[in-house]
Amino acid sequence: MSRLVMKFGGTSVADLDRIRNVARHVKREYDAGHEVAVVVSAMSGKTNELVAWCKDASPLYDHREYDAVVASGEQVTAGLLAIALQNIGIPARSWLGWQVPIRTTDAHGAARIEDIDGTAIIDAFGRDREVAVIAGFQGIHAATNRISTLGRGGSDTSAVAMAAALKADRCDIYTDVDGVYTTDPRVVPKAKRLDKIAFEEMLELASLGAKVLQVRSVELAMVHKVRTFVRSSFDDPENPRPGTLICEEEDIVEQPVVTGIAFSRDEAQITLRNLKDAPGIAAAIFVPLAEHNINVDMIIQVISGDQKTTDMTFTTTIADFDRACVVLEGLKEQIGFAYLEGSTDVVKVSAIGVGMRSHAGVAARAFKALSEKGINIRAITTSEIKFSVLIEAAYTELAVRTLHTLYGLDKA
Amino acid sequence: MSRLVMKFGGTSVADLDRIRNVARHVKREYDAGHEVAVVVSAMSGKTNELVAWCKDASPLYDHREYDAVVASGEQVTAGLLAIALQNIGIPARSWLGWQVPIRTTDAHGAARIEDIDGTAIIDAFGRDREVAVIAGFQGIHAATNRISTLGRGGSDTSAVAMAAALKADRCDIYTDVDGVYTTDPRVVPKAKRLDKIAFEEMLELASLGAKVLQVRSVELAMVHKVRTFVRSSFDDPENPRPGTLICEEEDIVEQPVVTGIAFSRDEAQITLRNLKDAPGIAAAIFVPLAEHNINVDMIIQVISGDQKTTDMTFTTTIADFDRACVVLEGLKEQIGFAYLEGSTDVVKVSAIGVGMRSHAGVAARAFKALSEKGINIRAITTSEIKFSVLIEAAYTELAVRTLHTLYGLDKA
Repeated sequence: MSRLVMKFGGTSVADLDRIRNVARHVKREYDAGHEVAVVVSAMSGKTNELVAWCKDASPLYDHREYDAVVASGEQVTAGLLAIALQNIGIPARSWLGWQVPIRTTDAHGAARIEDIDGTAIIDAFGRDREVAVIAGFQGIHAATNRISTLGRGGSDTSAVAMAAALKADRCDIYTDVDGVYTTDPRVVPKAKRLDKIAFEEMLELASLGAKVLQVRSVELAMVHKVRTFVRSSFDDPENPRPGTLICEEEDIVEQPVVTGIAFSRDEAQITLRNLKDAPGIAAAIFVPLAEHNINVDMIIQVISGDQKTTDMTFTTTIADFDRACVVLEGLKEQIGFAYLEGSTDVVKVSAIGVGMRSHAGVAARAFKALSEKGINIRAITTSEIKFSVLIEAAYTELAVRTLHTLYGLDKA
Repeated sequence: MSRLVMKFGGTSVADLDRIRNVARHVKREYDAGHEVAVVVSAMSGKTNELVAWCKDASPLYDHREYDAVVASGEQVTAGLLAIALQNIGIPARSWLGWQVPIRTTDAHGAARIEDIDGTAIIDAFGRDREVAVIAGFQGIHAATNRISTLGRGGSDTSAVAMAAALKADRCDIYTDVDGVYTTDPRVVPKAKRLDKIAFEEMLELASLGAKVLQVRSVELAMVHKVRTFVRSSFDDPENPRPGTLICEEEDIVEQPVVTGIAFSRDEAQITLRNLKDAPGIAAAIFVPLAEHNINVDMIIQVISGDQKTTDMTFTTTIADFDRACVVLEGLKEQIGFAYLEGSTDVVKVSAIGVGMRSHAGVAARAFKALSEKGINIRAITTSEIKFSVLIEAAYTELAVRTLHTLYGLDKA
């Protein structure tokens, strides 16, 4: 007998038929003799509806009340799945965040899990292996006794944290795709499903634009060494495919140099021209941006031809772009730049692989291949297991396909 | 400064515009310097949708899970109203049943309030008179830490119980009508709105078919002497009418003999013919019905012409009618009746007034007036402050209008 956590997202519980389908997935594991905890999201569309109502009630809504409203979505799904499980003969009950309890910080709307007490759920396993159906995405801020939510996509995080708290042997994240691919199959039809991927690689993939898992959930899985599968809820519940295992690097026997190609369209580029090249210039630019909560990602500085001025280029998210421009234009005299150029017509393409650690020149091969296709690289960042290039958005698909082929990721 | 509870039902919070309208009603009382607790129902239609989902998940749904699902409706409204109040500058927060806490029995789906701890809400009044927005209809069963609901219409009961727990000076029940009428104005256009009505009268009116308030909420108001107003949420929030006050009998100076006429179409009549008239015959009929949880209301027994047999007539609700017939037919030999006659084509019309206590012959005048209109009375029951007649359904409107005029209730 093993213990596992199964997580089902919004599209997997979109209506009663799908909830019944989820119940069959749970039944398979229950019948195999496992102790099962299920984490569920709200029915798809529900959260958006509830968020829209909060915004309608007040554009500056109180995040504590937002949490009370929005958490109701997962509450409904948890109750309905418990009923659907009982209906096919499986003992089950629903658990809300405050009932478990899943204790979080008081950062309402974007809370972090501080502590999960799994005792009550483990006790329930002792009663005919009662299935625990847990409302994802939510917790309780204990000091104020109020409902908190983890922010969008937080149900993945709920599931992995629950797996850690229950010391589960496995955490299965069911989604509408059957695993993690070498890149987005909609862009590269030759993309392959990976049988295994290392935690660090998955973390980079998620951070750099792959939407399959939330970054925070991968971090948690890595820290707590939770063996996590990404698999499809649309597979036959009696005979599903195994999906992709996210595991420790040493559990992967044959490690390719590059495991996957990610891309993110949520990028904006800002360039400040003809800056006086003096010490403290970077601080003059980036401290004010940080004070306005604007996240800066890639940064490059280029000395101009006459060696007396410099250009500074960096990227933000599209949501932060306008605010960043306003902040900087307001400081034009103080910073001392000639003019600002901005563009949201850029994309960041990244190659990820723990194999890069032991192979030299991996990125250099990419620069050559991209330049042969006539793709201009506007910025580069690298780290131990990945590199990213910022390019014009029109070249996204071409660049992704080029790198996918270059690193031998195309399906045979 | 006084303290009051305001309650708004489903049609009063049906969408965001109506919720904003409710916020304006609350603002009026807040601006007048009062401490305000608001009890809200789910947006109209929501509860039905959630109930339908539970039934879809399993016809034999677990009532504990049903409660977790259905209670989400009031949770959403409470959060949204708190946001809408904050948006117009009024400090507010939502309170769910488990947060107050409102402790109930474990009769999930039809729980009774056992105890409300108002301390936390009274503490909140101390912080700038923060408005407490309380999710109606729900509580918590403390021993199991699970959400409970009070059964349909339970938000009225939540409001009155909350008013008692907070020692409120007043409980205002806002609804889609502007008060309690002498009878249903859709049947008798001359019906008058009452300024005041005694608790006992309201209790009879609600029990006998008037839908304006839940019976349980009136009971609670009577026991705890909660001055309760029924008034309209569709009145101008800046200048609303006062509605009808439900109060102690001695607070009503001029008490008419009859205060109101109620009627209920949810009646079914069963007659057992040619029973052997022997001791124990009533027990032989009504004990089995009670064992099947079938509620019997009016009972009349008529000795037949030959004095040897008797007919027994009684009424049940329409929902219980078929089951009652099946139970009795199964006991035909044992009870010893010739045949059973049943009809759902009947209606119960009642006249209510505490003035009946001190006036003789009130009912007799009705029997005469009804017979003059050619209305046949099939059964009669009386109590200290009301009498009811069972008549053929086709005569409902005629009978109600006749009694309304007879007792001087028509508008001048």
